[in-house]
Amino acid sequence: MQKPENIGITIKKEENFSEWYVEVVQKAELADYSAVKGCMVIRPNAYSIWENIQSYFDKRIKELKVKNAYFPLFIPESFFKREAEHASGFKPEVAWIANTEEEGERLAVRPTSETVIYDSYSKWIRSHRDLPLRINQWCNIVRWETKTTRLFLRTREFLWQEGHCVYETKEECDKETLMYLEEYKKLCEDILAIPVLVGKKTDNEKFAGALYTTSIEAIMPDGKTLQMGTSHNLGQGFAKSFNIKFLGKDGKEHMPWQNSWGVSTRLIGALIMTHGDDKGMVVPPNLASIKAVIIPILFEKTEEVVLKKAKEIEKKLKDYSVILDDRKEYTPGWKFHQYELEGIPLRIEIGPKDLDKDQVIIARRDTSEKKQVKIKDVEKEVKILLEEIQQNLFNKAKKSFESKIVYTKSLQELKKLIDEKKVVKVSLCGSKKCEEELTNSVEALKSLNMPFNQSNIKDNCISCSKKASVLCYFGKSY
Amino acid sequence: MQKPENIGITIKKEENFSEWYVEVVQKAELADYSAVKGCMVIRPNAYSIWENIQSYFDKRIKELKVKNAYFPLFIPESFFKREAEHASGFKPEVAWIANTEEEGERLAVRPTSETVIYDSYSKWIRSHRDLPLRINQWCNIVRWETKTTRLFLRTREFLWQEGHCVYETKEECDKETLMYLEEYKKLCEDILAIPVLVGKKTDNEKFAGALYTTSIEAIMPDGKTLQMGTSHNLGQGFAKSFNIKFLGKDGKEHMPWQNSWGVSTRLIGALIMTHGDDKGMVVPPNLASIKAVIIPILFEKTEEVVLKKAKEIEKKLKDYSVILDDRKEYTPGWKFHQYELEGIPLRIEIGPKDLDKDQVIIARRDTSEKKQVKIKDVEKEVKILLEEIQQNLFNKAKKSFESKIVYTKSLQELKKLIDEKKVVKVSLCGSKKCEEELTNSVEALKSLNMPFNQSNIKDNCISCSKKASVLCYFGKSY
Repeated sequence: MQKPENIGITIKKEENFSEWYVEVVQKAELADYSAVKGCMVIRPNAYSIWENIQSYFDKRIKELKVKNAYFPLFIPESFFKREAEHASGFKPEVAWIANTEEEGERLAVRPTSETVIYDSYSKWIRSHRDLPLRINQWCNIVRWETKTTRLFLRTREFLWQEGHCVYETKEECDKETLMYLEEYKKLCEDILAIPVLVGKKTDNEKFAGALYTTSIEAIMPDGKTLQMGTSHNLGQGFAKSFNIKFLGKDGKEHMPWQNSWGVSTRLIGALIMTHGDDKGMVVPPNLASIKAVIIPILFEKTEEVVLKKAKEIEKKLKDYSVILDDRKEYTPGWKFHQYELEGIPLRIEIGPKDLDKDQVIIARRDTSEKKQVKIKDVEKEVKILLEEIQQNLFNKAKKSFESKIVYTKSLQELKKLIDEKKVVKVSLCGSKKCEEELTNSVEALKSLNMPFNQSNIKDNCISCSKKASVLCYFGKSY
Repeated sequence: MQKPENIGITIKKEENFSEWYVEVVQKAELADYSAVKGCMVIRPNAYSIWENIQSYFDKRIKELKVKNAYFPLFIPESFFKREAEHASGFKPEVAWIANTEEEGERLAVRPTSETVIYDSYSKWIRSHRDLPLRINQWCNIVRWETKTTRLFLRTREFLWQEGHCVYETKEECDKETLMYLEEYKKLCEDILAIPVLVGKKTDNEKFAGALYTTSIEAIMPDGKTLQMGTSHNLGQGFAKSFNIKFLGKDGKEHMPWQNSWGVSTRLIGALIMTHGDDKGMVVPPNLASIKAVIIPILFEKTEEVVLKKAKEIEKKLKDYSVILDDRKEYTPGWKFHQYELEGIPLRIEIGPKDLDKDQVIIARRDTSEKKQVKIKDVEKEVKILLEEIQQNLFNKAKKSFESKIVYTKSLQELKKLIDEKKVVKVSLCGSKKCEEELTNSVEALKSLNMPFNQSNIKDNCISCSKKASVLCYFGKSY
């Protein structure tokens, strides 16, 4: 029998964040490396989290009248070339199919699907009555990364959703571009319990081919930021390149406006980094497929009666997808460690002594607090505790998030703050030159986004000292 | 405004089945060709059917303790070569990635995932406590078909699920291989309303690398058969090639037994061919995301009161995912045709005259029958009608299915029957030679499967006239 010390996390999150992450991902059986360099296996413990993200978000977008579809994995090279900015943006990271010479041109494995989808849209859209057209797909994406890959955060293949909508007017398009971003914010904050910076990317950082890009960015415990989702207003550029036109209510031909938006399995990476601890993974209740595990403490004499009660409790709690682990080949201690490692929100212990007192012990994964609960109150208590855990995880993450954002007007201080693993907020004149001077001043520094509320600009540009026109966040990012 | 005749089906199913199919697929907006030869776009009308298939089947397999995961799209060439039969079986139809020379070997785009999954299993499985291991993935699959492609039926990329389980004993493996096949049968009959032939493939037709393959086969209206799903007992061949071992309860090292099983988006093709008619698609209620559409008949004077009532009915029926189409830019007649084309099971018409009688008209998509229903009874009636339609579609399909299967003991008659678009059942000695003599006697003839009940063998082998040992179905197949 394996002893708890063999399966536990041996590296402290505080001491070596990066190795701690790898250990949690592997030991909590979230993902595994594959024989193919840079590709990952998403194991059931993490895939079930992805399914819960999908299930929440898919329901939301369907309420917003988005329909799901599926477009081909392969994209003809000529499609890429039609939108020049887009083509150059994705060029270095495209994987190509070898045996397609007979088809006359090279085929790419999709690094994103704007081009192949808009080719179909150009056939489907004829009239204003076909608009707005709102389609989403859940699929795999391939980007032939040359940088070091990290499970969930940067891999050559990942899973995502990509929404692609077409509108009659810029106003509608603007409005819904922000609407989807707002949905991403809700997904992160309410479901993943991760606070985010919401804003607009600078032109330097916008999506290749977009009019503008909006994003949400989370701040990890090591101070590095993670882009959690983007929503792009694509303007009319792709419509022009792919010849998408519609007959308007005025009887004239018009060019529509488009947006695209996506989140990926990298959200799971953010989840692990934000909530995980020295015991392993911590899954927020809203994403946990198993919200509680019942562990009976079995002795020969009392086994029957304890098991019977445990099964009753399991039945009572079936709305919370609770499991009962009554395997005898593992000790209760082994099980405690195992489920802590996997991050199940609640553990319910029941032994003969508890039974005498008509109670169980409920242990919270997030705080390790234990509580005696009368059996008649278990259902009510589980409900309350799950809500409390969800809230507590968000509060803790929010506190850390807020402590990491610092406003500065000095370039000298900026460098110091970045060294101290902070995210900085600065005032900028808005020129590309000044943005680049900043990002060149510290290795790997990037502009994250500019908050939508820009009413509070007091200082001059941190770089050129001329009048500032934007507030912008900068940080090192994954 | 488009007139109904422009959007309707112009080819009769009876007259030109193959062109009728293409027309229904395109006009009902189920799928579309893509710029990439042999690849398809699955449009929202068909994708929602796939989502309903997924949702039903995913729930079932989770009840059977299968967990979902995701494995890489790319497979190293050396993996294929490890299982010789498997490698040669898939060789002609593999697409390869071009820019992977730096990785040392070629990478295939998965045509099926046994090899890449079992490489992970060899790392994960250590002890009998890790078994049975039951994992499934929903993903895209690429097979570089050189034959003519047909939307849903044969395309270079399609979507599927593939289950991959590992067991301690052959008995367990045998048992569950059949259990998954039985689940496929239920999926086809209860949900898709398509009857199937259930049985075991001959060695000639088994999966490359399997011990044996079981399958379900449907019979299309043109007499051609369609393999709807397969469940393979892989024996220990892959375990050997991929070095999967476990420490048994006896303390010794053992080699496990494996199965794999899959169904794909080709099921949607079967659905269209089986239930579609001269008006277009017919979606069985169990797979319809929209089960009924309410169409108000609007005149200026009575518009308000009719719309109000229509909305009340919509609300009442919200458990049946009913939509109300109150768009004014389309006539009721246009809408009737459109929803018939898309195959929505029920149409609910409500106009001022109906309102006077406190009733609506409900029209069935499958039989075109119309019925006056009191408004207070609408909910009850919709429930009954949906059940009746589901049952009626299955009964009709079953009748056609049964009329197409003919037993024969004469090779001469076999040829005639195949010409008459039948599926034949014959007695065979079981030799490869006799099976091949049969399949060579008629162009494109194939053995389908051998029913599990083999107790009824009376005649001698149809080919060599020696003692028969198996009953087997033969037909031309998609």
